[in-house]
Amino acid sequence: MSRKTILLKSRPNGWVSEDNFELSLSEIPEPAESEMLLEVLYMSVDPYMRGRMNDPKIKSYIPPFQIGAPCEAGIVGRVIKSNGGKYPEGTLLSGLGPWSTHAITDGTGFNPLPDDSGVPLSYYLGILGMPGMTAYVGLKAIANLQEGESVYVSAASGAVGQVVGQIAKNMGCHVSGSAGSDDKVSYLTDDIGFDAAFNYKTADNLTHAIREANPSGVDVYFENVGGAMLEAVINNINMKGRIALCGMIADYNATAETISTSPRNLTVLIGRNVKMEGFIVSNYPKESLEWLQVGAQWIKEGKLKYRESVAEGVENAPQAFIDMLKGKNFGKQVVRIKAD
Amino acid sequence: MSRKTILLKSRPNGWVSEDNFELSLSEIPEPAESEMLLEVLYMSVDPYMRGRMNDPKIKSYIPPFQIGAPCEAGIVGRVIKSNGGKYPEGTLLSGLGPWSTHAITDGTGFNPLPDDSGVPLSYYLGILGMPGMTAYVGLKAIANLQEGESVYVSAASGAVGQVVGQIAKNMGCHVSGSAGSDDKVSYLTDDIGFDAAFNYKTADNLTHAIREANPSGVDVYFENVGGAMLEAVINNINMKGRIALCGMIADYNATAETISTSPRNLTVLIGRNVKMEGFIVSNYPKESLEWLQVGAQWIKEGKLKYRESVAEGVENAPQAFIDMLKGKNFGKQVVRIKAD
Repeated sequence: MSRKTILLKSRPNGWVSEDNFELSLSEIPEPAESEMLLEVLYMSVDPYMRGRMNDPKIKSYIPPFQIGAPCEAGIVGRVIKSNGGKYPEGTLLSGLGPWSTHAITDGTGFNPLPDDSGVPLSYYLGILGMPGMTAYVGLKAIANLQEGESVYVSAASGAVGQVVGQIAKNMGCHVSGSAGSDDKVSYLTDDIGFDAAFNYKTADNLTHAIREANPSGVDVYFENVGGAMLEAVINNINMKGRIALCGMIADYNATAETISTSPRNLTVLIGRNVKMEGFIVSNYPKESLEWLQVGAQWIKEGKLKYRESVAEGVENAPQAFIDMLKGKNFGKQVVRIKAD
Repeated sequence: MSRKTILLKSRPNGWVSEDNFELSLSEIPEPAESEMLLEVLYMSVDPYMRGRMNDPKIKSYIPPFQIGAPCEAGIVGRVIKSNGGKYPEGTLLSGLGPWSTHAITDGTGFNPLPDDSGVPLSYYLGILGMPGMTAYVGLKAIANLQEGESVYVSAASGAVGQVVGQIAKNMGCHVSGSAGSDDKVSYLTDDIGFDAAFNYKTADNLTHAIREANPSGVDVYFENVGGAMLEAVINNINMKGRIALCGMIADYNATAETISTSPRNLTVLIGRNVKMEGFIVSNYPKESLEWLQVGAQWIKEGKLKYRESVAEGVENAPQAFIDMLKGKNFGKQVVRIKAD
């Protein structure tokens, strides 16, 4: 058996394609002293990774992937060989690793996972991982969400959005969202308790659709999309509203020619005393840890549902990543590298 | 002698012009019971008034002016007749009144001014009035400015901007600004202590000009302009930066065809954890009152300089208002209605 790894072959200009990746076969590496070899069980694909594929000259908060080197992702893996490493063989770990069947690490940035929690391991890449923490941080630390407020979230059936909606619902809020298919919209209202939802692809007018879903206006907007959607939300934002800027997937594959020119209505933020604040989850460790407690408890109590799209095999990671950016996934997109 | 008043004749579509106003002559009114007649000494013209001239169907935080009725402004006046009113004859008052030589009020919303403070009366419409309070609220309550940070302000020689710069300087910050003429730029650096300033009309590239004025990036941006300026600032904003949205004069006279399509780089706010927050000064009474103390003290100590443009006569108020929107004024624009 050999190791399979996905390398970044070239940098995408505009939309990313499978041609930007390369599958590499190699020998399974041996851990050096103080290192461990992990067998990777699951890896995550997330929108922010698109930014890591850009030219390193574009300033970013996270270092770019290197051409000819493995792409990185959140992974869950098991220690299968330890050379005096931090954790014994058999330990389940989650952290940042290569798009690969195997990973070598000294344990830096990895956390051990319980082997018997009853929670599917892939959840540690989603609802109990970075996306779930992101939802919690955005609502608590950024938007300071209060009981009874009206919350709207875009990309609402995605990895982050579905958690945003359920947290807000559990906090006693009016919750609304948009998604890109009628199936996803039904999931939001019928399965996970959204008060209102609509298909943004078939809505005649985004401003009106958001108003219909939020008859008393929007107090808190959890932003995953950007562009025309943000402009339409601003038209509906209430006095003292808060906009938590989590992502702007509409522009992740844009070039100078295709980038959104919206929003044109930022002056509205002045008169309505609105706060718009960007955040990256890694800057909020306190709230992130809090979520691990709150989220696990809510899962046990049946107060959180969660949907995933699972692709099979590391060789399909590039396609899964591209499909996710295009909104073809339904729920959190993960890749199963090896059955657990 | 009769009363002269400026009425709103028609609503501007795009750029406001003198044709949108009408001078009306009438008898000097008599105060009814509990009312006072004021002789108006000074009135203010400010950018936000442009919004009050728009169609009432456009939702706003402040009611629109009515067609055929007087425009309103901050005024300073003296009680010349009281019919059992709140203040005795001879009292100096400031508050919101008509663009007129005379005003009738029961005193609601008016505050008495000291007659012997040594501060020019027009200052109560500027540095010690709404514009000065706006500068203080934006830096303290919205941006939470800290000693040693880099501050950039647009429209820096204007009523608000020149106060913003001097407050930040008095707080031990690096202060930079832009203005629309070389004279104004010299005023900023040579007269009121800005560390750096540039003429935005002759700058080749706004992003580079801001970087040059702020070699370590921008921690706090006080926004008066919007559009391309905001986009250029976002290119230079530091991690955990704050943008206090005070005004966006670039778009106040815009139509659907001419409105700014910038900024196109809001995604930057996410990775850099930037907060952008709009505010209206009237929602921050505590900080506004604080400024009256701090500002008056600093003026006495010579730690605040202040420049005004003074137009003469209420009949010239429309032109003074238009000139201010076009940036032809230098410093806070006021209109002297009657010599004090």
